[in-house]
Formats: sequence, structure tokens, C-alpha cells
Amino acid sequence: MPSQFAIARSPRLRSTPFHDRVVAAGVHSFTVYNHMLLPTGYESPEESYRHLLESVQIWDVAVERQVEVRGRDALALVELMTPRDIASCRVGQCKYAPLVDEHGGIVNDPLILRLAEDCFWVSVADSDVLLWAKGIAAGRGLDVAVHEPDVSPLALQGPLADEVAEAVFGTWTRALRFFRFRETEIDGIPLVVARSGWSKQGGFEIYLRDGTFGAALWDRIVDAGLSYGIRPGTPNLIERIEGRLISYGSDVTLEHDPFEAGLEAFCDLDKPAEYLAHEALSARRARPPLRRLERVVVGGKRADPNGDFLPLHVAGRAAGRISSMAYSPRLERNVALAMVATGLGQRGLQVTLEDGSQRDVAVVGEDWGASADS
Amino acid sequence: MPSQFAIARSPRLRSTPFHDRVVAAGVHSFTVYNHMLLPTGYESPEESYRHLLESVQIWDVAVERQVEVRGRDALALVELMTPRDIASCRVGQCKYAPLVDEHGGIVNDPLILRLAEDCFWVSVADSDVLLWAKGIAAGRGLDVAVHEPDVSPLALQGPLADEVAEAVFGTWTRALRFFRFRETEIDGIPLVVARSGWSKQGGFEIYLRDGTFGAALWDRIVDAGLSYGIRPGTPNLIERIEGRLISYGSDVTLEHDPFEAGLEAFCDLDKPAEYLAHEALSARRARPPLRRLERVVVGGKRADPNGDFLPLHVAGRAAGRISSMAYSPRLERNVALAMVATGLGQRGLQVTLEDGSQRDVAVVGEDWGASADS
Repeated sequence: MPSQFAIARSPRLRSTPFHDRVVAAGVHSFTVYNHMLLPTGYESPEESYRHLLESVQIWDVAVERQVEVRGRDALALVELMTPRDIASCRVGQCKYAPLVDEHGGIVNDPLILRLAEDCFWVSVADSDVLLWAKGIAAGRGLDVAVHEPDVSPLALQGPLADEVAEAVFGTWTRALRFFRFRETEIDGIPLVVARSGWSKQGGFEIYLRDGTFGAALWDRIVDAGLSYGIRPGTPNLIERIEGRLISYGSDVTLEHDPFEAGLEAFCDLDKPAEYLAHEALSARRARPPLRRLERVVVGGKRADPNGDFLPLHVAGRAAGRISSMAYSPRLERNVALAMVATGLGQRGLQVTLEDGSQRDVAVVGEDWGASADS
Repeated sequence: MPSQFAIARSPRLRSTPFHDRVVAAGVHSFTVYNHMLLPTGYESPEESYRHLLESVQIWDVAVERQVEVRGRDALALVELMTPRDIASCRVGQCKYAPLVDEHGGIVNDPLILRLAEDCFWVSVADSDVLLWAKGIAAGRGLDVAVHEPDVSPLALQGPLADEVAEAVFGTWTRALRFFRFRETEIDGIPLVVARSGWSKQGGFEIYLRDGTFGAALWDRIVDAGLSYGIRPGTPNLIERIEGRLISYGSDVTLEHDPFEAGLEAFCDLDKPAEYLAHEALSARRARPPLRRLERVVVGGKRADPNGDFLPLHVAGRAAGRISSMAYSPRLERNVALAMVATGLGQRGLQVTLEDGSQRDVAVVGEDWGASADS
């Protein structure tokens, strides 16, 4: 949601290799993510949502920075950072893996790509995982090199992404399985192409390995996509809430553990490798969490997305907070993700929106089926 | 410099405890710093600069987050992070200390406050030092608690800051020495008051220790300052370039060492305590750096501040980059900080600005005395 405030530019907020193309395409707002400018809109979120669900979009998501971990102890370091089993990750495979500290707090929720037996990319959400990894490595004296390479992802998302990928990269992309990647190049531009992305509409993430080719890569994909109706887009708030895709720093923070975040499925608590969170998470799994990230529906008329956390209450008692909210034109209701206290029965939940209106809130299941009125 | 783009709000970009007051005061733009919104302007930078040099301003700099390091190994951990000697820092004292990794790269350039023998606040610039510190501590198995407390600095800066501080906190502030602080409270609001700040005009940083009092503290200071002409302000680009105050992430990054940054004076390379950068910095001090952060003057008419790095060249050869630039109405020239290659003699330096104009660049001394034409 663009605010009424301008963003002040400075080199500290790095622009991406696709910046000129993004500006030329008519971007109207940015957020900052990993010290970089992330485009957040070209048209209305609703219009972009509709297009994403039926066509194909190109997203500048170069802010997904890679933390490259390479060397004899690379696997050991990555294992230390996450409760997910990484040893079983094959070269050419990606795993979504919450990074968790020694107190059970989530540091980030990256995709981890294994480029070689001794080389990983940790493709991070918004926190300096680079510094955490460097700190652990230095503290342990591990034999690894940890750095941020010149790698900038572009996403190709939407039901027609396969057509565009085939046109640009070749037929092999059709056979690429979910969360698998291949190193390749086109026109001398070095790339990694993965079937992945921060939407549920399918598609690819294309990791550009040399930022000087940003405009060339963008143009190549847009040219190939024109006949499929490709448009510039961004991670879409409505679509990603519907798909329960977590925005780290909003929906989940260092204050939350994987049980609260609903990320148990991405933890292998008894994995053979040593990891920092082992003791903390083993203790926590014995008891149900006091709060959980839930899909909720906010009653009443169409609400604007929130700029800040929205506290939840039940009969005047604090009961959690909504972190991400948007009106879904498809579901015709306000959908949201909220960290909800588990002890209060989740009945009678209310929220006060930024426009001052008081709304009923209902925890719903995967299908967003229940409504705030039920 | 506000851009033509809006900033997209979301809870991931945390607002400060002073946010409502900042908005009410007419802020027009923000940047993002440590995952928070940092106000960047209420009036023109030139007007705010003039006011800062003759009066007093209140700045919302709550984005300067504190990394609290507490426990038996607190001193050992802080020592590991910096080549500066911290053992000699007394309780009640602050030290400016570059944090440096095992390769000699600067991780941050905080002020470190010693609150107790076994408790420090590392008051950080824009990078997740929290994660680096946690990583080192976990890797080493140190007996420390590392967290981000609910502490939000306000700055009171300008030649009349002493008058306002005395009116709000009492006469003891007159005797407070530079880089010393005291724990105190007013109206039940818990505070730390330090004589410090990110300008060369003198003043205080007031660390609010309970965010619920943000508006109350702001109002208390503004009320006391009205008769002295207090205005809301922000760290001022012109003034801080003139004073050679570094903006981490722009002027200096992880790619630079303390010699390149000109921070040797804040390093005690032979300090008794162990620190991660010891080997790397000991090797580097033997040879002159290949580049250095210099004050430079950019010739020609008044230039707009840069939004991105501006590459420097000498006869077509790359020679570094300008990171921060502004027109100084006092010096009547474009002042800038630039990382300049040392091997090229620094004559014939040129830069192409974002408006396409080609300008001569001259490295100058502390007094900004030389001009690009000399």
C-alpha cells in the first residue's frame, strides 16, 4: 500500500540491476528489503492480483539476497542454522528452511539452494543472515567462506510462466520439477533457473549471476512474454495472504518459534546434524504453543491493507495481532494473517482498524471458508 | 532527498514511538534504517541546515537500535567485535567503535555505551549487528544474553541544545561531558541521557527506555524548547558531510576496512583483548590502503544530492565513487564524501552526476578549503 510519504533515496538503499526497467515500466512505490529497493506496485493491487491469477508477471525480487556458504564446513554451518535436515538436500535442489536461533526464535525463512556438495545459497527474506552466518562461522572457527555474491533474482510467476520460460530458456524448463534448479545461460548471461517463487500461481525464479546484465535479461523475458500478456508485477499482498506465504518481519519475527509460525512441517527436530535450536525446540514441542499464526477473516466492508500491526482483543483482553490484511476480490472478504493467542477460545475476536472501525475477526481454515459472521 | 516514489507501509517497516508526533509535525519523507522508518525531512535540507547551525532541533532517531549485551562474558563479546579497546570504557561512558569482521571488513560503526561492568548497549547504524553478535556468542558458547531492548533514541542537536536539556532534565546536564551519559527519569519516563549525537553542533541523545512514553517525551521536550526556537529535524545531509560523519552502508560498507574508512584513530590494534579482526588488520596496517574515504568538492553549479553511488574516473579509468553529496550554502560549493583510489594521484578526477553533467572533483582537506577549480 503506497503511503502519502516519499521515500528518500541514498546509496545505502541499493537499487537493483533491474531498477531502470522497473522505473520505465511505471512503478509507483517501493519498500526497503535487505537494504535494497523492492518495487511494490505498478497498478492497483486488485488489478495486479487478477492479472497474476490468469497470466504471467515479471517481478524484480533482487532484494532476495543470497548468502553463499562455501567450503569444507559449508554443510555443517548451514545445518547449525536450521532445524530442517539439509544433508538430504541434493545438488540442484531447493529447500524452504526456517533459520532458528538457540532460543528457538526465527531469524529468517529462506529457500536454501545446494549448488555443490560444499556450496549453498541461502536466499533470504529481510534480515542480515549474512552477519549471523559470519558470526557463527567465526565463533566456531569453521572452514567456510561466507559472502553475498552478485546474484539478483527475477521472478516469473503466473499460470503462463511455463510458456515464457520455454520461449526464453528452452523446453527443458517444462521438465524442471518444483524446487529444483539448473545452472544455465542465455546470450552469455549466467543464470540459475529454479521452479519456485513467492506465489501459489506457479513459475520460476531466475537468479542473475552478473548484475551488469540486468536490463538485458529483463528485456529478453519481457520480449518473449509479450504475446502471453506478461506485465511487470510484484509479490502480491492479496495472493500471498490467500496462499499463507509468510512475510518475515511482519507475520513472523525473532520473537516467534516455528511452532507458533506453523512451520513444523519444515523442521526435522531429530535430524542427525547438530543445530543451534535443538535444545530450545525440543523443549517447546512438548507443550502446545501459546499463540499461532492463523488465517483470519475480518468482517465488514472492504478494508485497506494495514501499515502497522493491528492488535486483536477478546472482550477487552489482548489476544494477538493482525500482521497482513487485504481485501480479496475473489473471496469477497478481508483476508488476513494474525498471530492469535490460543488460550482464549478464539471466539469474540475483535480488531480496531487504522480507519477507526471496529471489526469482528474469525479464525478460518485453509479454504478461508468461514466468515466473521458465522 | 525525497524521490518521486511513495514508500509502501507494512508492519515489517516498524514505526517508532515518536511516529504520530513526526507525522503531525509535517514530515514529508522517510528512509528505512534497521527495519524502521527514519524521518528524513520536514522542510528543505538547506533551511533545516541553517536552523540546525543556529538553534536547536529534536530528531526521531529511534532507528538507532540498541544491541544489549549482558552477562559474565559481555565484555569479551564486545571486545571480539571491535579493534577498539573497550576494557577501558567506564560505566557511564560511550565510545565510537568500528565493528570489524575477521577479514577486516566493517560490519557497523556504532557508539558503545557501558551501562554496567557486565552490560553494554551497542547503538548501531544500519545493519543487523544483533544477528552478528548472537552468531559469535552462539558459536563461541559465551555466557551472555544478547537482545534488542525497548530503547528508542531522540536527539536534541544544535547550539541551544544545552538550554533545552537543562530546562527538561535539570542543571546536571550542563556538567555532563562529551560521550558521557547518565540514567535518569522525568515524569516517570525512564531515560538515558548522553552528550552525543550525529552532528557537529553539539547536543544530546536521549534514550527512551519505554516506547509507550514516546509522545509524552516528545511533547515535554518540544514544550521546553519552544522559547528557544526548537523545530523537528533530522540528521542533516549537508551538515554531516561537512563534519565527515560516516553513513554506514553508503560511505563505508563491509567491503571497506578501518584504514580505508579513515577510522584508524578509533582502533587499538594492539589492545590486550582478543578480537576477530586482529590478524587481518595487523597485516593491512603494514601497507598503505588502495583507497580512502576523502572529503571532495564537486565543481560547477549547485548539484542535487545523489540517490546512488556516483563513479569517479580519471582519464576514463575507474577511480572510486562518491557516496554522499550535497550543496553547502555556507561553503557555497558541492561537498561530498568519496572513496578515492590512492594510486592515481587524485588529479583530473571527474564524475558524471545523475543529471548527466560532467564535473571536476577535487580532494580537499579538513577545512574544505580547496576548490575543484584550484
